[in-house]
Amino acid sequence: MTDTAQTKLMGREIRLVAHPGGFPGESLFEVAESPIPEPAESQLLIRNAYFSVDPYMRPRTGDAREYVAPSTLGEAMTGGAVGRVAISRHPDYAEGDWVLHTLGWREWALSDGTYVWRIDPAAAPVSTALGVLGPPGFTAYYGLFEIGRPQPGETVFVSGASGAVGSAAGQMAKIAGCRVLGSGGSPEKVAWLRELGFDEAFDYRARPVREALAEAAPEGIHLYFDNVGGDHLEAAIGALRNHGRIVACGWMSRYGDAEPTAPHNLFMVVTKRLRMEGFRISDHLDRFLEFQAKAGGWLRDGRLRYRETVIHGIENAPDAFLGLLRGESVGKMLVKVGPADDDQSPRG
Amino acid sequence: MTDTAQTKLMGREIRLVAHPGGFPGESLFEVAESPIPEPAESQLLIRNAYFSVDPYMRPRTGDAREYVAPSTLGEAMTGGAVGRVAISRHPDYAEGDWVLHTLGWREWALSDGTYVWRIDPAAAPVSTALGVLGPPGFTAYYGLFEIGRPQPGETVFVSGASGAVGSAAGQMAKIAGCRVLGSGGSPEKVAWLRELGFDEAFDYRARPVREALAEAAPEGIHLYFDNVGGDHLEAAIGALRNHGRIVACGWMSRYGDAEPTAPHNLFMVVTKRLRMEGFRISDHLDRFLEFQAKAGGWLRDGRLRYRETVIHGIENAPDAFLGLLRGESVGKMLVKVGPADDDQSPRG
Repeated sequence: MTDTAQTKLMGREIRLVAHPGGFPGESLFEVAESPIPEPAESQLLIRNAYFSVDPYMRPRTGDAREYVAPSTLGEAMTGGAVGRVAISRHPDYAEGDWVLHTLGWREWALSDGTYVWRIDPAAAPVSTALGVLGPPGFTAYYGLFEIGRPQPGETVFVSGASGAVGSAAGQMAKIAGCRVLGSGGSPEKVAWLRELGFDEAFDYRARPVREALAEAAPEGIHLYFDNVGGDHLEAAIGALRNHGRIVACGWMSRYGDAEPTAPHNLFMVVTKRLRMEGFRISDHLDRFLEFQAKAGGWLRDGRLRYRETVIHGIENAPDAFLGLLRGESVGKMLVKVGPADDDQSPRG
Repeated sequence: MTDTAQTKLMGREIRLVAHPGGFPGESLFEVAESPIPEPAESQLLIRNAYFSVDPYMRPRTGDAREYVAPSTLGEAMTGGAVGRVAISRHPDYAEGDWVLHTLGWREWALSDGTYVWRIDPAAAPVSTALGVLGPPGFTAYYGLFEIGRPQPGETVFVSGASGAVGSAAGQMAKIAGCRVLGSGGSPEKVAWLRELGFDEAFDYRARPVREALAEAAPEGIHLYFDNVGGDHLEAAIGALRNHGRIVACGWMSRYGDAEPTAPHNLFMVVTKRLRMEGFRISDHLDRFLEFQAKAGGWLRDGRLRYRETVIHGIENAPDAFLGLLRGESVGKMLVKVGPADDDQSPRG
């Protein structure tokens, strides 16, 4: 592709055009076209192959209940994306390199190299850089091992276990020698958790979490990896043993229509000497290579497996995002953009 | 006192005789008399001078809401007490030794030496072994320094700050170089907090905690030492800065009539990467001597001050306990038993 041809092409992106009052809908987004930009000195132009839709993006759409600054209206949604360098005027990147970046929901991304990581398409399918070998996998790894500190023989409960983070966290807890329980939101998800080697899995829409936990772990749990909050968190606090730990990773229960339960047994943090701790992987990027090396090894030896739910076409990104919030995906939810054959890496 | 005279005497103790349905009342307790026991080989008999009434005793009275096993009906309430060895047949203790023990609400205590610590009456008034130099002071010390890890220049908020634990925690945070805010339940308590050197103090019964915090710490707090739970905890979670810490020490708000608020903003543990951690000093007794050495030094050089609310007469112990739960005491609430002049140690 030449510089001249490039400026004639148009690229699409998904922009946020409204802030929802409650649960977001498709009217929040528009598909916008603009000329594909030309990289200046020290810039690179990336043609995206996949981008990620994630639960953490919900607060960014803006909501009266939220306490974070929403994304700016009229701008493309940011987030993890994987693509190939189309033109590079940056010394560290060459045309054809596969990269992970954070510029989100667009076909073409112009970058100065900030928050761009080169990925090896021979090691694993490039889409895994957005899932099991990318931010969700790293979130599971850092949260489980650094915050949760699982010990062999302990019982670990993972909520939202069929998601990209939860499925990795549960399998890593198995690798750590733990007994692992997981909750999912459908019989299909629960079946997949059993396939992955979870010792117990249950459908939280079919029965109260508290009951399911009492049955699956009558002697209590040592560690709770929380992706959900609300009634899951309350049930887990009730089930935790003395000196139990809560990895406060996410609060999916806030992303539905209704305000979730506030746990009425939080005083048990005192009586049981619990530790509950939040984290964000962007504070710990110095550990990312270590994670990739370990997770890559587990992936190759079959101890770490993953699923992807791939939605094709940038215009379907809002649907993919809303479907994720409604719990319709299994594993990592991705949007495939660009030509279908641009991903030349081996598929798992 | 001879062994022979001893067996003719009667001693009194306060027994729990009923479990409350809600807020405890005087009818839960009775004053009972029994012969003063004679120590067998390896035992010692202690004549109490003071015993402690503490918030943590509330759940032990038994309550449908509680999750801990209540004390046994018909037995004396256990807890911290200070007394003098009257008769010793134990190799480690001599008649006249002052000791701290855990046998609670009674005039005379028969012990085999388990959970008995000798105290030095020349170092400080013996009553301080139940307060600033005893379990409450150690709770403040361990919680603040090991769980909270204050850094110079940080802003620390202590709730229930006029209590035995809170007043020590706040002063220790000042010693650590922090700016310290405290809440108390009356103008008198607030005035005392200012005397102690708290940078800001407010009466939580006079205004919402959230408002008071927003005014006293517009840029937020780094560390919250929680003795109260409920709306205090919710307000503190809202005021905490990213990477803030919550020392989950107590939940006094549960000990009133009404069920306290469950914090509706607990998801901020995720978004702000907070750490909330409970503890119990009985897990950390290996640090008790270190604490006593440090706190003793601060007491001598005037950087650590304390108050006691002393109720005289064992028969008034239920009143003292209920008064504590109603927030009527300032500093450490103690019951003085035995002859008025048995405490021959220097008073501060």
